[in-house]
Amino acid sequence: MKIAFAGERGSFAELAAAQYFGPRQTFVSVPEFEDVFSAVSRGRANHGIIPIENSLTGSIHQNYDELLKCNLSITGEIFLRVSHFLIANHGVKPHNIKRVFSHPQGLAQCKNHLKKFPDAECVPVSNTAYAVKKIRDERLLDAAAVASFQAAIDYDMNVLDKNIEDNKANITRFLIVSKKPKTTFASSQPLKTSVVFSLKNLPGALFRGLSVFALRDIDLVKIESRPVHGKPFEYLFYLDFEGGSNQERQANALNHLKEITVFLRVLGSYERGRLVKPEYKKR
Amino acid sequence: MKIAFAGERGSFAELAAAQYFGPRQTFVSVPEFEDVFSAVSRGRANHGIIPIENSLTGSIHQNYDELLKCNLSITGEIFLRVSHFLIANHGVKPHNIKRVFSHPQGLAQCKNHLKKFPDAECVPVSNTAYAVKKIRDERLLDAAAVASFQAAIDYDMNVLDKNIEDNKANITRFLIVSKKPKTTFASSQPLKTSVVFSLKNLPGALFRGLSVFALRDIDLVKIESRPVHGKPFEYLFYLDFEGGSNQERQANALNHLKEITVFLRVLGSYERGRLVKPEYKKR
Repeated sequence: MKIAFAGERGSFAELAAAQYFGPRQTFVSVPEFEDVFSAVSRGRANHGIIPIENSLTGSIHQNYDELLKCNLSITGEIFLRVSHFLIANHGVKPHNIKRVFSHPQGLAQCKNHLKKFPDAECVPVSNTAYAVKKIRDERLLDAAAVASFQAAIDYDMNVLDKNIEDNKANITRFLIVSKKPKTTFASSQPLKTSVVFSLKNLPGALFRGLSVFALRDIDLVKIESRPVHGKPFEYLFYLDFEGGSNQERQANALNHLKEITVFLRVLGSYERGRLVKPEYKKR
Repeated sequence: MKIAFAGERGSFAELAAAQYFGPRQTFVSVPEFEDVFSAVSRGRANHGIIPIENSLTGSIHQNYDELLKCNLSITGEIFLRVSHFLIANHGVKPHNIKRVFSHPQGLAQCKNHLKKFPDAECVPVSNTAYAVKKIRDERLLDAAAVASFQAAIDYDMNVLDKNIEDNKANITRFLIVSKKPKTTFASSQPLKTSVVFSLKNLPGALFRGLSVFALRDIDLVKIESRPVHGKPFEYLFYLDFEGGSNQERQANALNHLKEITVFLRVLGSYERGRLVKPEYKKR
C-alpha cells in the first residue's frame, strides 16, 4: 500500500503512518498538506495521513479547510507522542550554534529549551525533517535543527540533546484520509464520527445543533469553527462525536441536525485512535 | 493617549486604531503581539489593539492564548475592511518581479492574483508593512510587497496594482485591550461580552455550557476552542455573546455557567464594533 504524507522522510507524519499501517508499506513524501489530499484523490496513494491537532498548539486549521475542499473520507486516527531532538552536523558543538531551523511549531514547542542559545536565531522552515536535511545538505556548521530522532538517523546526523520539548504532554493527533468511507468495523471497537456543517440563521442555532447529540446522550469530543469564505463572520462547525454514523442514535441525531443546518457533510466514521510512541529504526 | 500595535507604521492594526481612537493619538509600534499586551500591562501604553479574527483566514489563535495569559480586559472592537496593494520601488515593472514579500496571511489572501507572477517566489515576513520597509531599505529591484496603501504612502513607494485580494469580503476584527474593564456605556449601544472557560468533565458539558445562554435567549456570536496546556485534548472555550456582563440576564447566565465550569473568566464587555474602511493620509 502507498501512504502519502507531507514533509521529508523522518517527519512525525511518517512515524505516525508507520505505526498506523505497519512499517512494511510504501510511504510517499509530498511537499505540502494539500498534496496529500490530491495524491489520494488522484489514486497516486491508497491513503494519506495529516496532522489535525496538537495538544499544545491546537488545531492545524489548514487541514480542516482541506478536508472540506476534498471529497475524501476520514477512515482512521492515531495519536503520536512527539519528542524533539536537537540535531547538528558531526563535530558541531553547542557553543557553535548561531541558528536553529525547524517547523514553527517545533520551535514554539521548545521555546524555553532554546533559551540556552540566547544568541541563536530561530529560523522557521516548512517541516522538521527538512530542517535536518537542509543543515546536512548545506553543511551548516553554525546551525542545529529541531526534529525527530528518526530524522537524525535517516540523515546520519549527530544528536546534541534529546526530549527538548518544554511540555512533555506533547501529542499530535493524525487523521487517515481515503477515497472510500469506512463502513465495517470490529464490533468491540469504540468509534468516532466527524462532521462539518453550517447553521441556519436562527436564534440559538449552535445550541440547537449541539442539542441533537445531548438529547441522545452522544458525547461530543471536539468542536472547531472555521470562517465561511465570502460570508464574513458566519462559521462552519467541525464536530467529532462518539459512535459511528450508521448506529441508530447517531443516524437519528444526524437526521435531526439536518433540520437546522444549511449544509451538512459526514467526513467519516473511524475507530478511536491509539496513543503511540514513535518507533525509530535504521533503514 | 498612547496606543500600542504590533508591526511597522502603516500596518492594518495602526489603520484600525486610528479609526477607533481618532488620528490624533500616539500610536506605538512594537515588534510582536505579546509586546502589545506587555506594553499595556506595564503602563507604557494606555490601550493596545490586536487582530483576533479575519473573515477569510479565521481566528488568530495566538492572540486568544495571549488574552488568557495577560490580566487585561477587552474594552472595544472594530472591524476593518482589508484591501491589499502590490507595492514596489519606483521604476520596478511587473515583469521585474521575482519575489513577493508579505505576511503569510497577506500572501494567502492574494493567492490567485499572485498567479500573474508564476515565476515569483512568495516570501513570508512578520508583517505586511515590514515587507514594504524591507524592499525599500534593501533597494530590492526584483521584488514587490503586498500591504496597505498607507504603507506605500509612508515609505514613498510605487503602487503597481490595487485591491488585489482574491475575495473582497476580507474583513479583520480587532480588539482593544486595556488595564481596566469598561463598565459604563451609552445606553443605546448594543454590547458584547467575551468569556473564557473550561468545563467540568461531565457528559454533554459543552451543551450544558451553551444552554445557560439559550435558556435566557442570549445570542452567541462566536465560539472558539483552544487546547489546555498539559492536559492533552481538554479544551478552553472562548465565547462571545450579546449583552454586557452587568445586565441581568447575562449576569444570571454567567452565575449559571459557573456551576459547570472549572474555570471562568470574563474577558470584558464592550460596544459592538463598527465596520470601517481604512482612511489613508500623507503624514
